[in-house]
Amino acid sequence: MPAMERRGMMLILSSPSGAGKSTLTRQLVADQSDISLSISVTTRPKRPSEIEGKHYHFMSVAAFKAMRDRNELLESAEVHGNFYGTPRRAVETALAAGRDVLFDIDWQGTRQIMARMRRDVVAVFILPPSMAELQHRLERRAEDNAETIARRLGNARDEIAQWGLYDYLIVNDDLEAAFYSVKAILAAERLKRDRLVGAPGFVDRLLKI
Amino acid sequence: MPAMERRGMMLILSSPSGAGKSTLTRQLVADQSDISLSISVTTRPKRPSEIEGKHYHFMSVAAFKAMRDRNELLESAEVHGNFYGTPRRAVETALAAGRDVLFDIDWQGTRQIMARMRRDVVAVFILPPSMAELQHRLERRAEDNAETIARRLGNARDEIAQWGLYDYLIVNDDLEAAFYSVKAILAAERLKRDRLVGAPGFVDRLLKI
Repeated sequence: MPAMERRGMMLILSSPSGAGKSTLTRQLVADQSDISLSISVTTRPKRPSEIEGKHYHFMSVAAFKAMRDRNELLESAEVHGNFYGTPRRAVETALAAGRDVLFDIDWQGTRQIMARMRRDVVAVFILPPSMAELQHRLERRAEDNAETIARRLGNARDEIAQWGLYDYLIVNDDLEAAFYSVKAILAAERLKRDRLVGAPGFVDRLLKI
Repeated sequence: MPAMERRGMMLILSSPSGAGKSTLTRQLVADQSDISLSISVTTRPKRPSEIEGKHYHFMSVAAFKAMRDRNELLESAEVHGNFYGTPRRAVETALAAGRDVLFDIDWQGTRQIMARMRRDVVAVFILPPSMAELQHRLERRAEDNAETIARRLGNARDEIAQWGLYDYLIVNDDLEAAFYSVKAILAAERLKRDRLVGAPGFVDRLLKI
Protein backbone atom coordinates (compact mmCIF):
# COMPACT_ATOMS: atom_id res chain seq x y z
CA MET A 1 0.00 0.00 0.00
CA PRO A 2 1.46 3.38 -0.93
CA ALA A 3 2.38 5.37 2.13
CA MET A 4 -0.74 6.94 3.60
CA GLU A 5 0.28 8.60 6.81
CA ARG A 6 -1.69 7.45 9.84
CA ARG A 7 -2.00 8.30 13.49
CA GLY A 8 -1.13 5.43 15.82
CA MET A 9 -3.61 3.89 18.22
CA MET A 10 -3.55 2.85 21.87
CA LEU A 11 -4.43 -0.86 21.79
CA ILE A 12 -5.58 -1.95 25.24
CA LEU A 13 -5.83 -5.63 26.10
CA SER A 14 -7.58 -6.42 29.37
CA SER A 15 -8.64 -9.72 30.86
CA PRO A 16 -8.82 -11.52 34.16
CA SER A 17 -5.64 -13.29 35.20
CA GLY A 18 -5.41 -16.64 33.37
CA ALA A 19 -7.48 -15.68 30.31
CA GLY A 20 -4.41 -15.43 28.09
CA LYS A 21 -3.69 -11.72 27.94
CA SER A 22 0.03 -11.95 28.70
CA THR A 23 0.60 -14.61 26.06
CA LEU A 24 -1.31 -12.62 23.43
CA THR A 25 0.59 -9.46 24.34
CA ARG A 26 3.94 -11.22 23.96
CA GLN A 27 2.93 -12.83 20.65
CA LEU A 28 1.68 -9.53 19.24
CA VAL A 29 4.86 -7.60 20.03
CA ALA A 30 6.95 -10.41 18.51
CA ASP A 31 4.77 -10.69 15.40
CA GLN A 32 4.01 -7.08 14.50
CA SER A 33 6.16 -4.14 13.60
CA ASP A 34 5.02 -0.62 14.44
CA ILE A 35 3.69 -1.61 17.86
CA SER A 36 5.42 -1.53 21.20
CA LEU A 37 4.45 -2.15 24.78
CA SER A 38 3.90 0.92 26.91
CA ILE A 39 6.52 1.16 29.65
CA SER A 40 5.09 2.21 33.01
CA VAL A 41 6.69 4.24 35.74
CA THR A 42 6.67 2.75 39.24
CA THR A 43 7.83 3.55 42.75
CA ARG A 44 8.25 -0.15 43.58
CA PRO A 45 11.88 -1.22 44.16
CA LYS A 46 13.61 -2.72 41.13
CA ARG A 47 14.01 -6.50 41.26
CA PRO A 48 17.41 -7.93 40.30
CA SER A 49 16.03 -9.42 37.06
CA GLU A 50 14.46 -6.16 35.91
CA ILE A 51 16.01 -3.60 33.58
CA GLU A 52 15.36 0.13 33.96
CA GLY A 53 13.62 1.45 30.85
CA LYS A 54 12.66 -2.01 29.64
CA HIS A 55 10.39 -3.41 32.35
CA TYR A 56 9.67 -0.12 34.12
CA HIS A 57 10.97 3.35 34.67
CA PHE A 58 11.78 3.22 38.39
CA MET A 59 11.43 6.44 40.36
CA SER A 60 10.92 7.94 43.80
CA VAL A 61 7.49 8.65 45.26
CA ALA A 62 8.25 12.38 45.08
CA ALA A 63 9.13 12.18 41.37
CA PHE A 64 6.02 10.10 40.68
CA LYS A 65 3.72 12.54 42.47
CA ALA A 66 5.33 15.46 40.64
CA MET A 67 4.61 13.77 37.28
CA ARG A 68 1.04 13.04 38.30
CA ASP A 69 0.49 16.61 39.47
CA ARG A 70 1.80 17.98 36.17
CA ASN A 71 -0.79 15.80 34.35
CA GLU A 72 1.99 13.79 32.74
CA LEU A 73 0.37 10.43 33.50
CA LEU A 74 -2.42 8.97 31.36
CA GLU A 75 -3.46 6.67 34.20
CA SER A 76 -2.15 5.79 37.61
CA ALA A 77 -2.88 3.41 40.47
CA GLU A 78 -1.65 2.50 43.92
CA VAL A 79 -1.16 -1.24 44.53
CA HIS A 80 0.08 -2.57 47.89
CA GLY A 81 1.50 0.86 48.72
CA ASN A 82 3.41 1.27 45.45
CA PHE A 83 2.48 3.67 42.67
CA TYR A 84 2.25 2.77 38.99
CA GLY A 85 1.48 4.99 36.02
CA THR A 86 1.64 5.47 32.25
CA PRO A 87 3.69 8.48 31.09
CA ARG A 88 1.84 10.58 28.56
CA ARG A 89 4.71 11.98 26.51
CA ALA A 90 6.13 8.72 25.10
CA VAL A 91 2.63 7.70 24.04
CA GLU A 92 1.88 11.03 22.34
CA THR A 93 5.18 10.86 20.46
CA ALA A 94 4.48 7.33 19.23
CA LEU A 95 0.92 8.09 18.10
CA ALA A 96 1.97 11.22 16.21
CA ALA A 97 4.65 9.17 14.41
CA GLY A 98 2.11 6.53 13.34
CA ARG A 99 3.26 3.89 15.78
CA ASP A 100 0.82 1.92 17.94
CA VAL A 101 1.21 1.46 21.67
CA LEU A 102 0.05 -1.69 23.42
CA PHE A 103 -1.33 -1.63 26.98
CA ASP A 104 -1.70 -4.61 29.25
CA ILE A 105 -3.88 -2.96 31.93
CA ASP A 106 -7.07 -3.51 33.89
CA TRP A 107 -10.46 -1.82 33.51
CA GLN A 108 -9.62 0.97 35.93
CA GLY A 109 -6.60 2.03 33.88
CA THR A 110 -8.65 1.63 30.71
CA ARG A 111 -11.33 3.95 32.04
CA GLN A 112 -8.75 6.61 32.97
CA ILE A 113 -7.11 6.50 29.54
CA MET A 114 -10.50 6.56 27.78
CA ALA A 115 -11.44 9.68 29.74
CA ARG A 116 -8.36 11.45 28.33
CA MET A 117 -7.89 10.11 24.79
CA ARG A 118 -11.01 8.17 23.77
CA ARG A 119 -10.54 8.53 20.02
CA ASP A 120 -7.08 7.01 20.11
CA VAL A 121 -8.15 4.02 22.21
CA VAL A 122 -9.04 0.58 20.88
CA ALA A 123 -10.05 -1.48 23.91
CA VAL A 124 -10.22 -5.27 23.72
CA PHE A 125 -11.48 -7.55 26.48
CA ILE A 126 -10.38 -11.20 26.56
CA LEU A 127 -12.93 -13.51 28.17
CA PRO A 128 -12.32 -17.08 29.34
CA PRO A 129 -14.66 -19.69 27.82
CA SER A 130 -15.81 -20.64 31.36
CA MET A 131 -14.89 -20.07 35.01
CA ALA A 132 -14.03 -23.76 35.30
CA GLU A 133 -11.52 -23.37 32.47
CA LEU A 134 -10.12 -20.22 34.07
CA GLN A 135 -9.67 -22.02 37.40
CA HIS A 136 -8.07 -24.94 35.58
CA ARG A 137 -5.57 -22.60 33.88
CA LEU A 138 -4.69 -20.90 37.17
CA GLU A 139 -4.15 -24.30 38.85
CA ARG A 140 -2.04 -25.54 35.95
CA ARG A 141 0.43 -22.73 36.51
CA ALA A 142 1.09 -24.49 39.84
CA GLU A 143 2.75 -21.40 41.22
CA ASP A 144 -0.07 -20.35 43.53
CA ASN A 145 -1.64 -21.96 46.56
CA ALA A 146 -5.38 -22.61 46.88
CA GLU A 147 -6.00 -19.38 48.76
CA THR A 148 -4.25 -17.29 46.11
CA ILE A 149 -6.19 -19.05 43.35
CA ALA A 150 -9.47 -18.36 45.15
CA ARG A 151 -8.53 -14.69 45.47
CA ARG A 152 -7.59 -14.50 41.78
CA LEU A 153 -10.91 -16.06 40.80
CA GLY A 154 -12.74 -13.46 42.88
CA ASN A 155 -10.75 -10.69 41.20
CA ALA A 156 -11.50 -12.29 37.82
CA ARG A 157 -15.23 -12.00 38.49
CA ASP A 158 -14.86 -8.30 39.32
CA GLU A 159 -12.81 -7.73 36.16
CA ILE A 160 -15.23 -9.65 33.91
CA ALA A 161 -18.14 -7.58 35.22
CA GLN A 162 -16.57 -4.58 33.41
CA TRP A 163 -16.81 -6.09 29.91
CA GLY A 164 -19.28 -3.38 28.84
CA LEU A 165 -16.51 -0.77 28.83
CA TYR A 166 -14.70 -2.37 25.90
CA ASP A 167 -14.95 -1.95 22.12
CA TYR A 168 -14.25 -5.58 21.23
CA LEU A 169 -14.78 -8.92 23.00
CA ILE A 170 -12.76 -12.06 22.34
CA VAL A 171 -13.56 -15.38 23.97
CA ASN A 172 -10.24 -17.19 24.28
CA ASP A 173 -11.01 -20.88 24.05
CA ASP A 174 -8.35 -21.38 21.38
CA LEU A 175 -5.15 -19.36 21.57
CA GLU A 176 -4.47 -19.42 17.83
CA ALA A 177 -7.97 -18.16 16.99
CA ALA A 178 -7.75 -15.50 19.70
CA PHE A 179 -4.41 -14.32 18.32
CA TYR A 180 -5.87 -14.09 14.82
CA SER A 181 -8.71 -12.01 16.27
CA VAL A 182 -6.34 -9.54 17.95
CA LYS A 183 -4.33 -9.22 14.74
CA ALA A 184 -7.50 -8.64 12.70
CA ILE A 185 -8.61 -5.87 15.10
CA LEU A 186 -5.20 -4.21 14.80
CA ALA A 187 -5.18 -4.52 10.98
CA ALA A 188 -8.74 -3.18 10.67
CA GLU A 189 -8.25 -0.27 13.06
CA ARG A 190 -5.18 0.77 11.07
CA LEU A 191 -7.49 1.24 8.06
CA LYS A 192 -10.00 3.46 9.87
CA ARG A 193 -10.50 6.66 7.93
CA ASP A 194 -10.30 8.71 11.14
CA ARG A 195 -6.73 7.49 11.79
CA LEU A 196 -5.54 7.95 8.19
CA VAL A 197 -4.42 11.54 8.58
CA GLY A 198 -2.67 11.25 5.19
CA ALA A 199 -5.91 10.44 3.35
CA PRO A 200 -6.90 13.97 2.30
CA GLY A 201 -3.43 14.53 0.82
CA PHE A 202 -3.45 11.11 -0.85
CA VAL A 203 -6.79 11.80 -2.55
CA ASP A 204 -5.71 15.31 -3.55
CA ARG A 205 -2.62 13.92 -5.28
CA LEU A 206 -4.74 11.18 -6.89
CA LEU A 207 -7.22 13.67 -8.38
CA LYS A 208 -4.70 16.37 -9.32
CA ILE A 209 -3.36 14.47 -12.29
CA MET B 1 -15.24 -19.61 20.25
CA PRO B 2 -18.31 -20.69 22.26
CA ALA B 3 -21.48 -19.48 20.63
CA MET B 4 -22.00 -15.83 21.45
CA GLU B 5 -24.98 -14.66 19.47
CA ARG B 6 -24.30 -11.67 17.27
CA ARG B 7 -26.23 -9.34 15.01
CA GLY B 8 -25.08 -9.37 11.40
CA MET B 9 -23.64 -6.33 9.66
CA MET B 10 -24.12 -4.66 6.29
CA LEU B 11 -20.66 -4.67 4.73
CA ILE B 12 -20.53 -2.09 1.94
CA LEU B 13 -17.68 -2.12 -0.58
CA SER B 14 -17.50 0.89 -2.86
CA SER B 15 -14.87 1.95 -5.34
CA PRO B 16 -14.50 3.48 -8.77
CA SER B 17 -14.74 1.06 -11.65
CA GLY B 18 -11.39 -0.71 -12.08
CA ALA B 19 -10.20 -0.43 -8.48
CA GLY B 20 -10.86 -4.10 -7.75
CA LYS B 21 -14.21 -4.08 -5.95
CA SER B 22 -15.85 -6.81 -8.04
CA THR B 23 -12.91 -9.16 -7.61
CA LEU B 24 -12.79 -8.59 -3.86
CA THR B 25 -16.56 -9.10 -3.58
CA ARG B 26 -16.36 -12.40 -5.46
CA GLN B 27 -13.39 -13.60 -3.38
CA LEU B 28 -15.07 -12.68 -0.12
CA VAL B 29 -18.30 -14.54 -0.87
CA ALA B 30 -16.29 -17.62 -1.97
CA ASP B 31 -13.99 -17.50 1.09
CA GLN B 32 -16.36 -16.65 3.94
CA SER B 33 -19.37 -18.37 5.40
CA ASP B 34 -22.12 -16.32 7.01
CA ILE B 35 -22.00 -13.61 4.37
CA SER B 36 -24.01 -13.28 1.20
CA LEU B 37 -24.41 -10.71 -1.52
CA SER B 38 -27.51 -8.55 -1.33
CA ILE B 39 -29.84 -9.25 -4.26
CA SER B 40 -31.33 -6.11 -5.77
CA VAL B 41 -34.70 -5.63 -7.38
CA THR B 42 -34.76 -4.08 -10.84
CA THR B 43 -37.18 -3.04 -13.55
CA ARG B 44 -34.60 -3.67 -16.26
CA PRO B 45 -35.46 -6.57 -18.62
CA LYS B 46 -33.83 -9.87 -17.71
CA ARG B 47 -30.91 -10.86 -19.95
CA PRO B 48 -30.81 -14.45 -21.19
CA SER B 49 -27.78 -15.30 -19.02
CA GLU B 50 -29.40 -13.97 -15.82
CA ILE B 51 -31.30 -15.99 -13.26
CA GLU B 52 -34.26 -14.54 -11.33
CA GLY B 53 -33.49 -14.47 -7.61
CA LYS B 54 -29.77 -14.97 -8.17
CA HIS B 55 -28.65 -11.93 -10.17
CA TYR B 56 -31.73 -9.79 -9.52
CA HIS B 57 -35.36 -9.92 -8.61
CA PHE B 58 -36.97 -8.69 -11.82
CA MET B 59 -40.22 -6.75 -11.50
CA SER B 60 -42.50 -4.23 -13.16
CA VAL B 61 -42.19 -0.50 -12.65
CA ALA B 62 -45.56 -0.52 -10.84
CA ALA B 63 -44.39 -3.24 -8.42
CA PHE B 64 -41.09 -1.39 -7.84
CA LYS B 65 -42.82 1.90 -7.09
CA ALA B 66 -45.24 0.16 -4.74
CA MET B 67 -42.28 -1.32 -2.78
CA ARG B 68 -40.57 2.05 -2.65
CA ASP B 69 -43.73 3.79 -1.48
CA ARG B 70 -44.20 1.24 1.31
CA ASN B 71 -40.63 2.03 2.49
CA GLU B 72 -39.54 -1.51 1.66
CA LEU B 73 -36.35 -0.39 -0.10
CA LEU B 74 -33.18 0.55 1.79
CA GLU B 75 -31.88 2.45 -1.22
CA SER B 76 -32.96 2.97 -4.78
CA ALA B 77 -31.74 4.64 -7.95
CA GLU B 78 -32.78 5.24 -11.54
CA VAL B 79 -30.10 4.48 -14.15
CA HIS B 80 -30.75 4.94 -17.88
CA GLY B 81 -34.49 4.84 -17.26
CA ASN B 82 -34.43 1.63 -15.22
CA PHE B 83 -35.02 1.39 -11.47
CA TYR B 84 -32.82 -0.53 -9.04
CA GLY B 85 -33.25 -1.02 -5.30
CA THR B 86 -32.30 -3.04 -2.21
CA PRO B 87 -35.23 -4.78 -0.48
CA ARG B 88 -35.27 -4.18 3.24
CA ARG B 89 -36.87 -7.37 4.50
CA ALA B 90 -34.25 -9.90 3.34
CA VAL B 91 -31.54 -7.75 4.91
CA GLU B 92 -33.37 -7.40 8.23
CA THR B 93 -33.91 -11.17 8.39
CA ALA B 94 -30.24 -11.88 7.72
CA LEU B 95 -28.97 -9.36 10.30
CA ALA B 96 -31.30 -10.66 13.00
CA ALA B 97 -30.07 -14.21 12.32
CA GLY B 98 -26.43 -13.15 12.69
CA ARG B 99 -25.60 -13.32 9.00
CA ASP B 100 -23.75 -10.53 7.22
CA VAL B 101 -24.89 -8.97 3.96
CA LEU B 102 -22.42 -7.68 1.39
CA PHE B 103 -23.21 -4.65 -0.81
CA ASP B 104 -21.41 -3.71 -4.00
CA ILE B 105 -22.86 -0.20 -4.37
CA ASP B 106 -21.78 3.40 -4.99
CA TRP B 107 -21.64 6.31 -2.57
CA GLN B 108 -25.21 7.40 -3.28
CA GLY B 109 -26.59 4.02 -2.26
CA THR B 110 -24.22 3.98 0.73
CA ARG B 111 -25.54 7.35 1.89
CA GLN B 112 -29.16 6.19 1.63
CA ILE B 113 -28.48 3.00 3.63
CA MET B 114 -26.47 4.90 6.25
CA ALA B 115 -29.39 7.30 6.72
CA ARG B 116 -31.64 4.34 7.61
CA MET B 117 -29.42 1.84 9.46
CA ARG B 118 -26.12 3.51 10.38
CA ARG B 119 -25.25 1.21 13.27
CA ASP B 120 -25.46 -1.88 11.11
CA VAL B 121 -23.31 -0.44 8.33
CA VAL B 122 -19.58 -1.04 7.87
CA ALA B 123 -18.57 1.01 4.84
CA VAL B 124 -15.27 0.33 3.07
CA PHE B 125 -13.87 2.39 0.22
CA ILE B 126 -11.32 0.84 -2.16
CA LEU B 127 -8.92 3.38 -3.69
CA PRO B 128 -6.65 2.83 -6.68
CA PRO B 129 -2.93 3.49 -6.04
CA SER B 130 -2.96 6.13 -8.82
CA MET B 131 -5.17 7.37 -11.65
CA ALA B 132 -2.56 6.12 -14.12
CA GLU B 133 -2.90 2.62 -12.68
CA LEU B 134 -6.70 2.90 -12.77
CA GLN B 135 -6.61 3.92 -16.44
CA HIS B 136 -4.19 1.08 -17.15
CA ARG B 137 -6.56 -1.45 -15.53
CA LEU B 138 -9.54 -0.13 -17.49
CA GLU B 139 -7.57 -0.35 -20.74
CA ARG B 140 -6.35 -3.86 -19.95
CA ARG B 141 -9.94 -5.07 -19.83
CA ALA B 142 -9.97 -4.23 -23.54
CA GLU B 143 -13.73 -4.31 -23.59
CA ASP B 144 -14.30 -0.57 -23.78
CA ASN B 145 -13.40 2.02 -26.37
CA ALA B 146 -11.40 5.17 -25.57
CA GLU B 147 -14.51 7.28 -25.11
CA THR B 148 -16.00 4.84 -22.60
CA ILE B 149 -12.72 4.67 -20.71
CA ALA B 150 -12.56 8.48 -20.54
CA ARG B 151 -16.12 8.55 -19.18
CA ARG B 152 -15.32 5.87 -16.60
CA LEU B 153 -12.27 7.84 -15.46
CA GLY B 154 -14.44 10.94 -15.04
CA ASN B 155 -16.95 8.92 -13.01
CA ALA B 156 -14.07 7.48 -10.98
CA ARG B 157 -12.99 10.99 -9.96
CA ASP B 158 -16.54 11.81 -8.80
CA GLU B 159 -16.70 8.56 -6.85
CA ILE B 160 -13.26 9.02 -5.22
CA ALA B 161 -14.25 12.52 -4.08
CA GLN B 162 -16.75 10.82 -1.69
CA TRP B 163 -14.10 8.91 0.30
CA GLY B 164 -14.93 10.90 3.46
CA LEU B 165 -18.25 9.07 3.80
CA TYR B 166 -16.60 5.73 4.55
CA ASP B 167 -15.46 4.03 7.77
CA TYR B 168 -12.41 2.31 6.28
CA LEU B 169 -10.07 3.06 3.38
CA ILE B 170 -8.07 0.45 1.49
CA VAL B 171 -5.56 1.35 -1.22
CA ASN B 172 -5.57 -1.58 -3.62
CA ASP B 173 -2.10 -1.76 -5.10
CA ASP B 174 -1.81 -5.47 -4.29
CA LEU B 175 -4.89 -7.65 -4.55
CA GLU B 176 -3.77 -10.18 -1.95
CA ALA B 177 -3.04 -7.48 0.63
CA ALA B 178 -6.33 -5.74 -0.15
CA PHE B 179 -8.20 -9.03 0.31
CA TYR B 180 -6.51 -9.61 3.67
CA SER B 181 -7.57 -6.10 4.68
CA VAL B 182 -11.22 -6.71 3.81
CA LYS B 183 -11.17 -10.01 5.71
CA ALA B 184 -9.57 -8.33 8.74
CA ILE B 185 -12.28 -5.64 8.76
CA LEU B 186 -14.97 -8.32 8.61
CA ALA B 187 -13.33 -10.39 11.38
CA ALA B 188 -12.83 -7.35 13.61
CA GLU B 189 -16.33 -5.95 13.13
CA ARG B 190 -17.76 -9.36 14.09
CA LEU B 191 -16.07 -8.94 17.49
CA LYS B 192 -17.53 -5.48 18.19
CA ARG B 193 -19.26 -5.48 21.54
CA ASP B 194 -22.24 -3.60 20.08
CA ARG B 195 -22.95 -6.44 17.65
CA LEU B 196 -22.49 -9.24 20.21
CA VAL B 197 -26.10 -9.30 21.37
CA GLY B 198 -25.35 -12.57 23.19
CA ALA B 199 -22.63 -11.00 25.36
CA PRO B 200 -24.77 -10.08 28.38
CA GLY B 201 -26.15 -13.63 28.55
CA PHE B 202 -22.69 -15.14 28.06
CA VAL B 203 -21.23 -13.11 30.93
CA ASP B 204 -24.24 -13.89 33.15
CA ARG B 205 -23.73 -17.62 32.62
CA LEU B 206 -19.98 -17.20 33.18
CA LEU B 207 -20.46 -15.47 36.54
CA LYS B 208 -23.40 -17.55 37.77
CA ILE B 209 -21.28 -20.60 38.56
